Amino acid sequence: MKKDIVAGLGEIGSPILKLISKYEPAIGYDLDKKLMNENKFKKFQEIQTRFLHIAIPVNKKFDFNVIKLYEKFAPECIVIHSTISPGTTEKLQKNLSIPIIFSATRGVHKRMFRDLQRYTKFFALSKTAPKKEWAATQYSKTMKKCGIKTKRMSKPETLELAKILCDTSYLGWLINYAQLTNTIAIQHNVDYDEMWQFSDEIHKILGNRPKMFPGFIGGHCVIPNLDLMQNKTLSLIKTINQNYSKKVKNSKSIHKKYMK
Amino acid sequence: MKKDIVAGLGEIGSPILKLISKYEPAIGYDLDKKLMNENKFKKFQEIQTRFLHIAIPVNKKFDFNVIKLYEKFAPECIVIHSTISPGTTEKLQKNLSIPIIFSATRGVHKRMFRDLQRYTKFFALSKTAPKKEWAATQYSKTMKKCGIKTKRMSKPETLELAKILCDTSYLGWLINYAQLTNTIAIQHNVDYDEMWQFSDEIHKILGNRPKMFPGFIGGHCVIPNLDLMQNKTLSLIKTINQNYSKKVKNSKSIHKKYMK
Repeated sequence: MKKDIVAGLGEIGSPILKLISKYEPAIGYDLDKKLMNENKFKKFQEIQTRFLHIAIPVNKKFDFNVIKLYEKFAPECIVIHSTISPGTTEKLQKNLSIPIIFSATRGVHKRMFRDLQRYTKFFALSKTAPKKEWAATQYSKTMKKCGIKTKRMSKPETLELAKILCDTSYLGWLINYAQLTNTIAIQHNVDYDEMWQFSDEIHKILGNRPKMFPGFIGGHCVIPNLDLMQNKTLSLIKTINQNYSKKVKNSKSIHKKYMK
Repeated sequence: MKKDIVAGLGEIGSPILKLISKYEPAIGYDLDKKLMNENKFKKFQEIQTRFLHIAIPVNKKFDFNVIKLYEKFAPECIVIHSTISPGTTEKLQKNLSIPIIFSATRGVHKRMFRDLQRYTKFFALSKTAPKKEWAATQYSKTMKKCGIKTKRMSKPETLELAKILCDTSYLGWLINYAQLTNTIAIQHNVDYDEMWQFSDEIHKILGNRPKMFPGFIGGHCVIPNLDLMQNKTLSLIKTINQNYSKKVKNSKSIHKKYMK
């Protein structure tokens, strides 16, 4: 018997652990011991680690922290579920002799357990990864057992970019537009929701005019993920968001109107 | 018997005339006589004009041209189908003693005849318009006869803004994002379409991650309509579009890949 480790028991790691534990021997690890089941952790200590699931926050020490966890648990394979900057998987793979899978996570934090089972878990490995076919097969099988579909992309960078560009930053870009149009509507004394009725049919027919809520972008996804890109035009998302909070007084509470 | 006039027989006026002519006495008028049925025009000359439908292009002389057409045809009511800058209907209404309806047009030029019957025709009148209930009722009835649903908005400015902000400029904003992400994908040697697979399920579930085609925005809607707004942030759409055509060599032919 081998075990899986989920490192980082926050909003992503915790539901991943809950899901995997249902079907595989799996234990959680976190710097905050209160989040861990320490008894179970000790009981499983001597068992070899198959997958080390990385769900720790991304900061400047991320690479260093992954390598420390690798040394601590000596896994056969690492799976990164955190959102990382493009090139991270390749860079880590160069430093490690076990395969590293990047497998981006999608879903809304508050319903992450459900969303994990709803979205296909894309994944990718560097072409230089050792035992990469074994790792890909094992990972797909394990996820399938947990009720999660998987799909492999051609290389990690495609998926690293996809997670940021096609998911969180895109959401920011769309909300920016809602902010802009609400600012203009206010200037013209026009009702935002009445105005946006105009997009309903277009969205229904063409699927490309989603009406968004003109709130301030808070939280810890959309805005922090921008820093992983360091792209000048994309950083407009942050600027527009900041300016909006100065211009529109109720920008931070406006979502309540829509979230009933 | 009264007649309708459609002034401006371009990509909007021509299908409007075709549609109304099926159910009402209606004739077209254009500065380019080749576009007109001059015999029919002469035959109907002495008949009183009920609706004067305005589908002429918008430029600096638009207000002047509308008033000239009003004087020429002495209609009971004017309906503006062109996309106009916010405040135009109010301004014109102040100068005319007949009701002015603004009724924004939606649809793709090449299938406008079909799209006219597909989308609800929103319309609005200034609260200072004379005989406004009569005009609203007559317009709705006529459109209904032509197979077009109508919906009235509370004031012209809401609809003037809606047409630009929730339709054409929004399209530009979304294509801008496709342009940005294609530029980044190229820099990272990543396949655009493979990367965007990531948004498919999110769009299916949440309806707010449409994958757009990363082409150059040409045509005569999205970009010219920006000038009707004179908004600094919105004018980014033009800047990003221009920069894209410099950065990505096949930006003007890339759509062919997607339009098969």
